[in-house]
Amino acid sequence: MSRLWEGRQTGASDDVLLELGASIDLDIELYREDLAGSRAHAKMLGHVGILPEQDLKAILDGLTAIEKEIESGKFELKIELEDIHTHVENRLTQLIGPAAGRLHTARSRNDQIAVDTHLYVRRLAREIGEEISRLCDALIVKAEAEIDQVIPGYTHLQVAQPVKVSHHLLAHFWGFLRDRERFAQTYKTANRLPLGSGALAGVNYNTDREFLRKELNFAEIYENSMDAVATRDHIQDFLYASTSFAVRASRFAEEIVLWNSVEFGFIKISDGLTTGSSIMPQKKNPDAAELVRGRAGRNTGNLVNLLMTLKGLPFAYNRDLQEDRTPLLDTAKNTHLIARTLTALVKGIEFQKHRLTASLERGFATATDLADALVTKKDIPFREAHHIAGKLVGLCAAQDLTLTQATKEMRRSVSSHLEDDTFYFESISTVNSTDRKISQGGTARSRQIEQVEKARAALVDRLPWSQK
Amino acid sequence: MSRLWEGRQTGASDDVLLELGASIDLDIELYREDLAGSRAHAKMLGHVGILPEQDLKAILDGLTAIEKEIESGKFELKIELEDIHTHVENRLTQLIGPAAGRLHTARSRNDQIAVDTHLYVRRLAREIGEEISRLCDALIVKAEAEIDQVIPGYTHLQVAQPVKVSHHLLAHFWGFLRDRERFAQTYKTANRLPLGSGALAGVNYNTDREFLRKELNFAEIYENSMDAVATRDHIQDFLYASTSFAVRASRFAEEIVLWNSVEFGFIKISDGLTTGSSIMPQKKNPDAAELVRGRAGRNTGNLVNLLMTLKGLPFAYNRDLQEDRTPLLDTAKNTHLIARTLTALVKGIEFQKHRLTASLERGFATATDLADALVTKKDIPFREAHHIAGKLVGLCAAQDLTLTQATKEMRRSVSSHLEDDTFYFESISTVNSTDRKISQGGTARSRQIEQVEKARAALVDRLPWSQK
Amino acid sequence: MSRLWEGRQTGASDDVLLELGASIDLDIELYREDLAGSRAHAKMLGHVGILPEQDLKAILDGLTAIEKEIESGKFELKIELEDIHTHVENRLTQLIGPAAGRLHTARSRNDQIAVDTHLYVRRLAREIGEEISRLCDALIVKAEAEIDQVIPGYTHLQVAQPVKVSHHLLAHFWGFLRDRERFAQTYKTANRLPLGSGALAGVNYNTDREFLRKELNFAEIYENSMDAVATRDHIQDFLYASTSFAVRASRFAEEIVLWNSVEFGFIKISDGLTTGSSIMPQKKNPDAAELVRGRAGRNTGNLVNLLMTLKGLPFAYNRDLQEDRTPLLDTAKNTHLIARTLTALVKGIEFQKHRLTASLERGFATATDLADALVTKKDIPFREAHHIAGKLVGLCAAQDLTLTQATKEMRRSVSSHLEDDTFYFESISTVNSTDRKISQGGTARSRQIEQVEKARAALVDRLPWSQK
Amino acid sequence: MSRLWEGRQTGASDDVLLELGASIDLDIELYREDLAGSRAHAKMLGHVGILPEQDLKAILDGLTAIEKEIESGKFELKIELEDIHTHVENRLTQLIGPAAGRLHTARSRNDQIAVDTHLYVRRLAREIGEEISRLCDALIVKAEAEIDQVIPGYTHLQVAQPVKVSHHLLAHFWGFLRDRERFAQTYKTANRLPLGSGALAGVNYNTDREFLRKELNFAEIYENSMDAVATRDHIQDFLYASTSFAVRASRFAEEIVLWNSVEFGFIKISDGLTTGSSIMPQKKNPDAAELVRGRAGRNTGNLVNLLMTLKGLPFAYNRDLQEDRTPLLDTAKNTHLIARTLTALVKGIEFQKHRLTASLERGFATATDLADALVTKKDIPFREAHHIAGKLVGLCAAQDLTLTQATKEMRRSVSSHLEDDTFYFESISTVNSTDRKISQGGTARSRQIEQVEKARAALVDRLPWSQK
Repeated sequence: MSRLWEGRQTGASDDVLLELGASIDLDIELYREDLAGSRAHAKMLGHVGILPEQDLKAILDGLTAIEKEIESGKFELKIELEDIHTHVENRLTQLIGPAAGRLHTARSRNDQIAVDTHLYVRRLAREIGEEISRLCDALIVKAEAEIDQVIPGYTHLQVAQPVKVSHHLLAHFWGFLRDRERFAQTYKTANRLPLGSGALAGVNYNTDREFLRKELNFAEIYENSMDAVATRDHIQDFLYASTSFAVRASRFAEEIVLWNSVEFGFIKISDGLTTGSSIMPQKKNPDAAELVRGRAGRNTGNLVNLLMTLKGLPFAYNRDLQEDRTPLLDTAKNTHLIARTLTALVKGIEFQKHRLTASLERGFATATDLADALVTKKDIPFREAHHIAGKLVGLCAAQDLTLTQATKEMRRSVSSHLEDDTFYFESISTVNSTDRKISQGGTARSRQIEQVEKARAALVDRLPWSQK
Repeated sequence: MSRLWEGRQTGASDDVLLELGASIDLDIELYREDLAGSRAHAKMLGHVGILPEQDLKAILDGLTAIEKEIESGKFELKIELEDIHTHVENRLTQLIGPAAGRLHTARSRNDQIAVDTHLYVRRLAREIGEEISRLCDALIVKAEAEIDQVIPGYTHLQVAQPVKVSHHLLAHFWGFLRDRERFAQTYKTANRLPLGSGALAGVNYNTDREFLRKELNFAEIYENSMDAVATRDHIQDFLYASTSFAVRASRFAEEIVLWNSVEFGFIKISDGLTTGSSIMPQKKNPDAAELVRGRAGRNTGNLVNLLMTLKGLPFAYNRDLQEDRTPLLDTAKNTHLIARTLTALVKGIEFQKHRLTASLERGFATATDLADALVTKKDIPFREAHHIAGKLVGLCAAQDLTLTQATKEMRRSVSSHLEDDTFYFESISTVNSTDRKISQGGTARSRQIEQVEKARAALVDRLPWSQK
Repeated sequence: MSRLWEGRQTGASDDVLLELGASIDLDIELYREDLAGSRAHAKMLGHVGILPEQDLKAILDGLTAIEKEIESGKFELKIELEDIHTHVENRLTQLIGPAAGRLHTARSRNDQIAVDTHLYVRRLAREIGEEISRLCDALIVKAEAEIDQVIPGYTHLQVAQPVKVSHHLLAHFWGFLRDRERFAQTYKTANRLPLGSGALAGVNYNTDREFLRKELNFAEIYENSMDAVATRDHIQDFLYASTSFAVRASRFAEEIVLWNSVEFGFIKISDGLTTGSSIMPQKKNPDAAELVRGRAGRNTGNLVNLLMTLKGLPFAYNRDLQEDRTPLLDTAKNTHLIARTLTALVKGIEFQKHRLTASLERGFATATDLADALVTKKDIPFREAHHIAGKLVGLCAAQDLTLTQATKEMRRSVSSHLEDDTFYFESISTVNSTDRKISQGGTARSRQIEQVEKARAALVDRLPWSQK
Repeated sequence: MSRLWEGRQTGASDDVLLELGASIDLDIELYREDLAGSRAHAKMLGHVGILPEQDLKAILDGLTAIEKEIESGKFELKIELEDIHTHVENRLTQLIGPAAGRLHTARSRNDQIAVDTHLYVRRLAREIGEEISRLCDALIVKAEAEIDQVIPGYTHLQVAQPVKVSHHLLAHFWGFLRDRERFAQTYKTANRLPLGSGALAGVNYNTDREFLRKELNFAEIYENSMDAVATRDHIQDFLYASTSFAVRASRFAEEIVLWNSVEFGFIKISDGLTTGSSIMPQKKNPDAAELVRGRAGRNTGNLVNLLMTLKGLPFAYNRDLQEDRTPLLDTAKNTHLIARTLTALVKGIEFQKHRLTASLERGFATATDLADALVTKKDIPFREAHHIAGKLVGLCAAQDLTLTQATKEMRRSVSSHLEDDTFYFESISTVNSTDRKISQGGTARSRQIEQVEKARAALVDRLPWSQK
C-alpha cells in the first residue's frame, strides 16, 4: 500500500524530501501512544455506530498484533513509509484488509499525531516527576543524616557564614520540588484531548469526544479544533520544565565538582560515579557531575529550537511543526539521565568533616559572629565591634592563622574584650553560629528538624497523575 | 554616607567596576516594592520589640517622604550609590539620622532585593494577566461579530477547509488563555516571602516571618533561607510566560501581515495601526503587527540570558544574579506593549467578505465536501468519489475557473453524478461545509455559539490575584 | 582489554554514568579522522625514532584492517568501550598485540579527540561550502533565465516596487555567498593542528609537530597546548556558520511557501518537492520549503547548546566538553539537508507570469513611477505629483480596478496630465519601472546582466580548501 | 513638519504604535553615522549634478549645525518624530528651508538606516578589536612576569599537571586573539556600502556609488540593492563575535572567582576590583569577575534575539528589522565593559606562590612524572611504574601527606627504586616537570619564551582597520 497522497502527483518524491521529511526514526518511540489513540478512536466509532462490530474487533485484534510485533522487534521500519501512522496503517491493511481503512473515518493525521504527543508528554511528565520525587527523597535522607555537620555557606564563592549541610541540601530540595510542580503543570497542559478535531475544522460526524476523553483518561477536551491541531503548548511546557530542572541541576553539579577538587576536598564521591585517569593515578574525576552540568545547554537549546520554529507560523498545521519531535525526544532522554545521575550522586557523596572545618576556619566564617557577640554580650557599639573583629581577622590572615589559632596575646592586642577564652571560643564556634540562626527558615538545628519534616510533608503532596 | 563595605579596603573602586556593577538605573523601577518591603520589615521589628516605637515612626515617616520625593521626580540618583537600597538608606539617614541604621537589623541586601523582585514580579504577572484578559475579551467580541463569516482554514498555507472567522479567532483565544494561566503560575511562584532569610543562613533573631507574610500579603513563606536568596525561579517563570505569550502573538501577527497583503486582502486595519509610505501612496503597512512579530525574539533572548546566567552557579548569592534585572525589566515593558498592541489590532481589523470568498473559491476549499457528498448522498465508494472531485478540480484549475464557475458540461464530463445543480451547489457551499462540522469543537454554527459561551465562562475563571 | 582508568578504583561504574558518558554512537561518525590522526602520530613517532620500524608497520597495517572492518560493517560497537579511541585501541591490541600500546606514547585522549574534531569540522566546512556553491550556481542559472520576468518587490509584505525575478534571486545569492565565506572562516579556524599537546601541558618528548602538520595537511599549529585541548572554537564557528545559513534559508523558504499559496500563486513547485493531501485533492503542499524553514530553530538551538555548555568552564579539559559532539553532528546532518533541499527547490520552481502581473497590478506597483513621471516629464512639483498619483490609486481601489484598467475619464477627473495614453501607459509599465532603476546594484536589465556576471565571478573565488 | 507618510491616512497613530515603533532613544547613538551618511550623499548628489552648489552648501552647513546641537546637548528628542532620520530632516528644514528636502533625492530610509548601522558596526568592531588588543597585551605582560611561577593545570577541576602561569595565561591569549579575528571579520562584513539602493530596487538616477564608497571609506559596494536593505549580516556577525568573546571571558572570570576563593587562594585581586561585605570583614568579593561571568548570557540572548527575529522573514524590508538596534546597542555597551574589566583584572591579580605550591603538592601533581622517571631512568615497565607511583600516592593520601613529605621508609616500602633522594626529589619537582614538557607548544621554560615572542608577533598582525 502506498502513501495516501500519491494520487494527483506524477513525479516521484525527490530523495532529499524523503530524507528531510521522514520522522519514523523518532515516531517509533510513540508507538504505544499511537496504538492507544487508534484503539480509543475505533471503540468510539463502534460506540456511535459508525463502525460495525466485526470491523471493530478486526481492528482491535490487528492493533494488538502490531503491538506485539513492535515489542518483539519484528516490525520493519521503512523510510519511504515516513511516519508511525503510515506504518501502522500499512501493516493493519496487510493483516485485516480493507476494514483497516475505516479506522480513518472522522480522523486526520493532524489530530492523530496531536493525541500521540499529548499522551506521550503526559507520560513523560509523570515519569520525570516521579524521578524528581526520588531525587528529593534522597536529598531529605542525606540532609537528615548530615543535620549536625557544618559546611561553609558561600556568597561570591567566599566563605560567608557556617550552615548545616542539611540546610544546603534542602535549599536544593525546595528548588527541585518547584521543578516537579512545573512537570505537574506540564501534565495538566498535556492532559487534554485533541482527538476528534479532524484536519482543523472538526469532522462531519457527531462523534462522541467525551467517550474518547474517558477512554484515554484525559481531564479535559480541546474546545476548538484549530487550536487542538496547531498548539504545541504541551511540548513547549515540557521543554521548559526540563530546562528549568537541568539548569538547576547544573548548579548542584557545579558544587559537586568544586567540592570534589583537591582545594575544597569537602566530599568523596563513590567510585561508580567518577573515573580515574590513565596517566595520573591520584585523580578521581567527577565525570558524572560534569556531564550533568554539561547537559543544561542541551535542554536549553532544544527549548530555543521549538520556540524559534513556532515563531511566526500562521495557523493551523504547517509541516514545520513536525520538527517538534526532535527536541522532545532528545530532551526526554536527557532529562531522565540527569535526574537519575543526580540521585545517584546525592546518595554517593560522603562529606569530609576535617576539610569542611578547615575551610570554615581559613574563611574566618564566624568573624561576624564574634562582632555580634561583642555587641550583644559586651555592649560594644555595632561599628566598633565590627572594627575589632575585622582587625583580628587582619592580624590572623597576615600570619596565616585561623581565629582558633589566634593567641591570647594577639586577641588582647586588638581588644581586652577578646581575652576571655569562654566568651571568645563560644563566639567563634561554627556550630554555635549556626544554632543562633533561629529565624524561620534558618540553619539552627531546631529549624533544620522542622524543615526536614516540612520537606517530607511537601514531597507527598497530591500530584495530578496520582489523582483519580 | 558612604557605601557600607568600604571599611577594610584601601583603593577606590575602579570606574569600570562602578559602571559594570551599578544597577540603580534598573532598580529605580522597583522603588515601590523596596519601600513596601522596608515598611513591612520595620513594622515587624516593632511588633517583636526589636525596634522602639519612636524609631519605627521615624522610619515609616521617612520612607513616606522618600516615596513622595521619588514620585515628584525630586529624588536624585547617583551612580556611586549603585542600587536602590543604598539610595534609600542614604536618604533615610539624611532625613532621620542614626535610627535609619536600625532598619537593617535582621535583614541583608540579599533578602531585601529578593523581596523587591518577588513583589515586582507578582505585580507584573497580575498586570499582564489582566491585559491578556482584555485581549481575550476582544477576541470573543470580534468572534461573536464574525460568527457567520467564512474564512479559509489553512494547512501548509494552502487553503484546506472553510471555517468560521469566529472559529479561527477563538483558536487564538484558547492559546492566550493558557498563557494567562502561565502568568497565574508565575504569580504563585512569586507569591512567597523571602524576607527574613538574612544573607543566606537566617538571622540571629526569632523574627516573625508570619507577620511579614501577612503584611506583604504573600501566600507562603520560603522554608529555607538559602533557597530564598539564591532562587530566581519567579523571574525565570515570568520570562518563560512572557516568551510563550510573545511567540504565540507572533503567530497571530504573521497572519495579520498576510491577511493585510494585496494578495490575501482579507482585512483592513484601522489607520492608527498602520503607516503609509512616503513614496508609495497606495500602501498601508501593517507596522503594528510586524513589530509584535518582531518582538518574540526579544523575550526569548531575555529568557536565554537568564538561563545561561544561572547555569553552573554555585549557591548561594553570586553577583552574576544581579544580571536578572536587565531581562526582567526589558521583557516586562516589551510584553506590556505586545499585549496592548494585539488588543488594539483585534479591535482594529475588519474582514473583507469578497476577498475571503475569492480565496475559498480559488483554493477549491470545498472539493473534499463534494467528494464526501458523493459518498454519503450518491453512494459512491470513497476512493472513486475522491477521484471524481479531484478530476473536476483539475479541469477547473487548468481553465482558471472555480468550482462555482464550472459549467454543467464540465461537471457531466467528469461524472453524471455532478449534473444535479441542487446537489452540486449545496455540496460546494462553504457555509454548508462549515455547518457540517458538527463534532464538539468543530466549526459548525451551533458549535461556535457553544464555544463563545465556553470562552466567556473560562475568561472569568478565578485567578490567584483575585483571591482573598 | 579494559578501559585504561580502572586501576585505582574498586567499584564498578554505575550504569547511569556509562549511559551518560558513552559517546561511541556519535564518535563512530569520526572514525576516518580518528584513524588518520593515529596514522600520522605513528609515522611521526617513527620519524623521530621513538617507534621502531616494525611496530610502525604493524600499527599502520592494523589501522588499515580496522578501517576495512568499520567500512564493511563488521566492527562491533560496545557501549562499555565508551568512545571511538577505546574501540580502536582495543581492537588494535587484539590484532597486533602490545605494540598497539606504543601508539599512545606522547599522546593523550584530549589531543586525540581534538585532532579528530578539527579534521572533521574542516571536512564538513568544505563539504557544506561546496553545497552552497551548488546552491549559488543554481540561483545564477535561474536568475539568468528569469532576467525579463517582473515580480513585485515587497516592503512590509506590501507590494512596493516591481523588480526583476533575477534581482530577487540574486539578493539571496549574495547572502548565501557570505555564508560560504563563514564556512571558509570555519575551515581556517579548524585548519590548525592540536595534536602533540598531551593532556594539556605538552609532552616529555621533543616531538615533531611540523611533521604532523604536514602529514595531516594543516595550515597552522596551535602554539599553546592548553589552548589546543580546551578550545571548541572550530565547532562553535561551524555551528554559527550553519545557523546563519539556516536562518537565511528560512527566509527564502518562507517566500516559497508564500509564493506557492493560492493567494500569491507566483510559482509552481515540481512534484517531488511537494506532497498532496489525502483528503483534499487540489492541494500541493510545499513540504520541502516548510521543512527547510522549520529547521532554522534546530541549528540555532545547537549553537545555544554549545555556548551555554562552554559558559563558565575553567581550563583545561572538562567532561562537559564531550557534549560538543551532539550539536556538531546534528547540525552537520541538518545543514547538509537544508542546502541540498534548497538547491532542489531553486531548480524546481517555475514562475507564473500571469499571477505575478496580477499582484503587480492589484498592488499599484507603479503608482510611484507615475508620480515620478509627472515630475520629470510634466514638470509637476513633487508633492502635487504624489497627490495626483495617490488620488488615482484611491479611485481605482474603491472600484476594484487596477491602474491599467482606469478609464481615460477617471484619469482625467484626477488630472488632465494623465489623459495622454502614451505618457500614461509608459509611466505605469512595470517593465519600464524596473528598467529605470539604473543605479549600480539596481534592477534595470543592464544592471541585471552586469550582476549575473559579477555573481558568476564571485562564485569562483579562491576558497581555503581549494588552495594548495 | 510632520512625518512623511501622513498623507493618505485619516486616523491618528494609536499611542501604542507610537511607543512600540519609536526608535529614537536607540538611534540617537548613531547620530554621527547618520550625519556622515547624509553628508556623503549630498556631496555625491552635487558631484553628479543633481544638487545645485548652493543647496549642497546649505545642507552641509545645516548638518554641521545639527551635529553641534546634538553634541552640546541642545538637540531636542521627541517620540512623535520616531527616529533619527526624521529628527535630522525636521531640524534641517527648520534651519535651511525647502532645500532640506533635496537631500532625499535618490535615497530612502531603508538605505539610510542601512548605511548608518554599517558605519556604526564598523566603528564598534574596530573599537572592541582594539580593546581586545589591549587585553591581549596585558596577558603577555603578565605572562612574561610569571614565566617562572608554577600553577596546577587542571582537567575535570582536578590537579593534573604543573604548568607555568605564563602557559595558562597565554592559553587565554590565543583564544582572545581568535575573537579579535572575529571582530576583524565583522569589520569586513560591515565594510560594504549599502547607500544608493533606494527602498529596495535601486533608484531612477545614475548615481555614483563609487563616489559614495570613497567618501565613506568602504572597501566594497553591495552589488544588489535588495540584499543591501534586507541584510542584517553585519549586525549578526557583530553579535556573534561579541558572544564568542563574552563566553570566553566567562571562562577566565570563573577561574578568577575560583582562584580568589579561600580554598584555592591562588591570587589577590586589587581592591578596586573587589568589594567587601557590610557584615563580614574578612571577605573580598570578586565582583568584577562575577559580573563579567554573569554577562555572557546577555550577549548570547541578544544573538538569539536577532536570529529569531530574522527567521522566516520574507524580503525585503520588514518593520521587524527595526528590532535589530536593541540587541546591537546593548551588546556593544556590554562588550566594551567586559573587555575593559577583564583587562583591569589581568593587571590587578597577583599570584600567591605558597598557595599554588600547596595545591600542586596536595594534588600530587607530579605523580605521573615520578612514574615516567621510573620508566626512563630506572627501566621499569610502564604499567609497573604507574602502579608504584599510584601506590605511593595512595599511602600519602591516607596519611594526609604530600609526595614531598613521604618518608624514605614509606617510599622504600613501595619500591626500592624510590629510595634515592636525588632521583626522587628531582622526579617530583614541579618546576622540573614543567621543563620536561619541551614539545612545541609545551610548558617548558624555553617554549614559554618562544611563545611569548610568538604572541607578541601575532598581536601586531595587520588588521583590516589599520589598512589604507
